[in-house]
Amino acid sequence: MSKYLSISTKAPEGFEKEKTKEKTEDLILKLRDLQAVLFAESKRSVLIILQGIDASGKDGTVKHVFTGVNPMGCNVHSFKAPTLEDSSHDFLYRVHSYAPAKGMIEIFNRSHYEDILVPSVHKLLSESKIKKRYDYINSFEHLLKDSGTIIFKFYLHISKEEQTERFKERKTNPEKEWKYQPEDIAESKHWDDYMEVYEDIFDKCSQEIPWTIVPADQNWYRNYFIAKTLVETLKELNMKYPERG
Amino acid sequence: MSKYLSISTKAPEGFEKEKTKEKTEDLILKLRDLQAVLFAESKRSVLIILQGIDASGKDGTVKHVFTGVNPMGCNVHSFKAPTLEDSSHDFLYRVHSYAPAKGMIEIFNRSHYEDILVPSVHKLLSESKIKKRYDYINSFEHLLKDSGTIIFKFYLHISKEEQTERFKERKTNPEKEWKYQPEDIAESKHWDDYMEVYEDIFDKCSQEIPWTIVPADQNWYRNYFIAKTLVETLKELNMKYPERG
Repeated sequence: MSKYLSISTKAPEGFEKEKTKEKTEDLILKLRDLQAVLFAESKRSVLIILQGIDASGKDGTVKHVFTGVNPMGCNVHSFKAPTLEDSSHDFLYRVHSYAPAKGMIEIFNRSHYEDILVPSVHKLLSESKIKKRYDYINSFEHLLKDSGTIIFKFYLHISKEEQTERFKERKTNPEKEWKYQPEDIAESKHWDDYMEVYEDIFDKCSQEIPWTIVPADQNWYRNYFIAKTLVETLKELNMKYPERG
Repeated sequence: MSKYLSISTKAPEGFEKEKTKEKTEDLILKLRDLQAVLFAESKRSVLIILQGIDASGKDGTVKHVFTGVNPMGCNVHSFKAPTLEDSSHDFLYRVHSYAPAKGMIEIFNRSHYEDILVPSVHKLLSESKIKKRYDYINSFEHLLKDSGTIIFKFYLHISKEEQTERFKERKTNPEKEWKYQPEDIAESKHWDDYMEVYEDIFDKCSQEIPWTIVPADQNWYRNYFIAKTLVETLKELNMKYPERG
């Protein structure tokens, strides 16, 4: 049944917290350099999609991996529930407007995948309508790729126990209290349904641009894993500072 | 004649480069903390307007002062020459759409002031039309302030000699070559005209939200000055992490 999410939510054996954190620091410096060339070159763009259940660490990933990248070349958009105005367009309309321009890194904190997740879990759309959304998404991501966008799709994989822990932390830590939403607790009751839809997403939307499942119970390993994936892929592009034309 | 721009473009006596850089590092950490509370509180927003002649260090300011701020709470928009579509609206239309939401810091790399500078220097609009733009800008900034936006307007003040040096550097440093634009050299011939319009801007648009003239020949002093101004002003707001509602 759980084809993708049967992998562990924890760091593999042999990873030590402090040493891994040091490696991450180094990767973040490399990411900063790669972003600078990407921007100067202005030939392609980068789209980073962060998905995961509530409290899976999407905000934390942005904070820890991308604080240190020049904000002039890096935008973040957090997708909330669609507004009435959003809903008066097709579901990709608002998403498309945030697609990164050449030279830019754009981070989607949640994304168009919410438009499959929420209606599937809460049965707000017919199965045939949801099926169509999968096709539209594949075609949309293909379009972006075709026009020079490198797309990363990260699923932040945490256990149910870890989520419960994090909700507790939000209730007691004064610097995190503001993030506590009673709705999140209600939503967490649909855990199994969400996992089932995620499995479906990984299955149907990984042909062209594969998903990366990130073991995310430990923030330090999650940051390392994501920074490493980004740096390795961007390095392979062999980007260069352009010469004066 | 030069009421505002007669001040020095250099660091005042007594400022030592390495020590000032250390202080700046410290200020940037404080700015990071202030941004985190601003975001959590979500009661007000911050708009930072960066203006200055070509090569005055607008990009460098963003890179050095804001790399280190959580990009989730900080957007940068660089205003280029208006597109045909932009021009089919009033001149504040495109600017307004980038006004920061509550909790956010928005940096304008160039701004609506270009819509006074360029038409004034190149005589593209009648004097009466330009006069109206001053009024519209004052009213627009007032509107933003009224709805909880703290506005900083920084003019990066460099000397003509420093600009010439920086253009030379762009021609010879392979990591800066991509920034070299022959148009910039052409535009720099209008130096005196630009200075005259800037004087006018400082005169007409400082009542409600004053301009800050930043001595900007030395990048290290510029960064310090801006970081210090931001931190001191934001500290005074006494922002607090909200309690669970």
